[in-house]
Amino acid sequence: MTIETEPMSDPSMRWTTLEWVGDAQSGVFRILDQTLLPEQERMIELPTAESVWEAIRSLRVRGAPAIGCAAAYGVVVGAREGAVKGSSLRSSAIAAADYLATSRPTAVNLFWALDRMKRLVDRFEGTEERELLDALLVEASTIRNEDDRMCHAIGRNGAALLADGSGVLTHCNAGGLATSDYGTALAVIYAAEESGKKIRVYADETRPLLQGARLTAWELARRGVDVTVICDNMAAVVMRERKVDAVVVGADRIAANGDAANKIGTYGVALLAKAHGLPFYVAAPSSTFDMTLEDGSGIPIEQRDPSEIRRGFGKQTVPAEVKVYNPAFDVTPAELITGLITERGVIAPVTTENIRKSLA
Amino acid sequence: MTIETEPMSDPSMRWTTLEWVGDAQSGVFRILDQTLLPEQERMIELPTAESVWEAIRSLRVRGAPAIGCAAAYGVVVGAREGAVKGSSLRSSAIAAADYLATSRPTAVNLFWALDRMKRLVDRFEGTEERELLDALLVEASTIRNEDDRMCHAIGRNGAALLADGSGVLTHCNAGGLATSDYGTALAVIYAAEESGKKIRVYADETRPLLQGARLTAWELARRGVDVTVICDNMAAVVMRERKVDAVVVGADRIAANGDAANKIGTYGVALLAKAHGLPFYVAAPSSTFDMTLEDGSGIPIEQRDPSEIRRGFGKQTVPAEVKVYNPAFDVTPAELITGLITERGVIAPVTTENIRKSLA
Repeated sequence: MTIETEPMSDPSMRWTTLEWVGDAQSGVFRILDQTLLPEQERMIELPTAESVWEAIRSLRVRGAPAIGCAAAYGVVVGAREGAVKGSSLRSSAIAAADYLATSRPTAVNLFWALDRMKRLVDRFEGTEERELLDALLVEASTIRNEDDRMCHAIGRNGAALLADGSGVLTHCNAGGLATSDYGTALAVIYAAEESGKKIRVYADETRPLLQGARLTAWELARRGVDVTVICDNMAAVVMRERKVDAVVVGADRIAANGDAANKIGTYGVALLAKAHGLPFYVAAPSSTFDMTLEDGSGIPIEQRDPSEIRRGFGKQTVPAEVKVYNPAFDVTPAELITGLITERGVIAPVTTENIRKSLA
Repeated sequence: MTIETEPMSDPSMRWTTLEWVGDAQSGVFRILDQTLLPEQERMIELPTAESVWEAIRSLRVRGAPAIGCAAAYGVVVGAREGAVKGSSLRSSAIAAADYLATSRPTAVNLFWALDRMKRLVDRFEGTEERELLDALLVEASTIRNEDDRMCHAIGRNGAALLADGSGVLTHCNAGGLATSDYGTALAVIYAAEESGKKIRVYADETRPLLQGARLTAWELARRGVDVTVICDNMAAVVMRERKVDAVVVGADRIAANGDAANKIGTYGVALLAKAHGLPFYVAAPSSTFDMTLEDGSGIPIEQRDPSEIRRGFGKQTVPAEVKVYNPAFDVTPAELITGLITERGVIAPVTTENIRKSLA
């Protein structure tokens, strides 16, 4: 169950991807419902672990870092909810974390954030449940605040790679809406603009769920960045016409060798960038690296409901009897990635050794 | 003005891209309204040159060869209409041809068919207007029937290139719906199947107007071909997963050197095919070649209304204040094309010399 709050009617009003309002005992967890953008800007309350699970599953909140933050707050909500029903706060927190881990499979930040919350429970030595709940909220807020700092550092590290007047192509949304606030790929653009450079962005609309058209275009326009939406199949021609000088995208999971899973279509964009001699950057915080996977072949790829393609716009666009293939992510091999932009710097060339050194 | 006729309620009923029913004096020109597919199968009558212009402009009938056929019948309709209003049939026919030439700029078959109709008027030596009208209908029907024969020859010539059990990726719709009946790219698949081979087709949905999802999937399924729809941005991953062994697409205009204009996104697919070592074929009748253009740089590219992307299926998907880029076609350079499949054979390698020899 979600509780709707007033829409943000004032367009100058600052939007917030996700926020906790109040204290741990009685506060509320709210997100901007991204499925309604750009038509409606509406914050919704997520009062239960189930509502957080559903919000992640149905992409009301999405983007690897934002999923991590939302799941962390979801543990607070779930722990409190379990305690009200009579379970111990400790076991409710662990149960909520295990449950939220089943919401989506690909973004590793989800598991990383939930592990942090579970480790906190494990090492908590107090006896007061109230103290544990407070500590859980502090940990979730720390994850969120760390994400915000990492995003700004990613922006600073990446901005140096873009020349004044550049055109940048991006795919899906790796912006403020995909993180606590500032973005990963879009942080690079925001930081470049804040340093006085003018950047033109071409945003792939990103079928099937149109995160590029609905979310990236929306937040770039809100922050005053020059943005043009194209269909995914126009990326090659935009490159050929020299409208763009670089590609910057986010990632949902990066293997030890630099192979990067990101929204479906990213791999194709990387091949097109190579064919046109354009640099292809992946921007992501350290929490996106999964050093337990040698390469990208081990990254689980979420398969989503065919109806996203079949009736994506509320209208039947694929005949009912026809099959649909709908992988939500693909893996871009490390050799197509010019550099990995993290909060620690730019990893280039992308090799297992350079990644290990950077994360050490 | 269009007059709707009964929908084809029986799904086994054979659909017809376009047809003339009756004689030249009182017959009617009908098309299957492709903007309504796959939800509705409805034949509409086009009683005036204006209704034919509008049907071409708004893609009720589309695909380079079908546009040529529709325009030819449009001259018959327009000539008759002008004569009713008191103009000479001869001048009405020329006026209708000139008017219909303004409907869309890229497909050269449109101008080729209209030139044929105008040449008929020029060389007509009779004095009876009735005879000229009959001759115009005969010429339009000849264009249609020649297209049908060419499509079957394209199919036969191309089928030999596909092995039994192959996967084929196609973009947009170069099928029966894009021609008089049998298709160009899809003719290759139909002919391969008719020769006993099993072919699996992956159809790019083809944003913004989804001709792949709505039309290619529809007609392949109707003819019993195994088809799976993917979003355009999934083509690279389908190739990487070795689900496809070849790409076959149509063309709207081919320059003397083999550079081929086709639906936006085709150029990107050609680059992806090259990156995966897959053959990339373009199937088109001779009427698609424009030997007045040395290369593809001279092909006019239609820019279409941003609303096709912005609110493609009745829902706002791009914020109102954000720019949209919407070229309807792109040009694939000859060096990315493994072979050009025409009614005369397969042109490979694609060079100006080989094209001249084949068309001579």
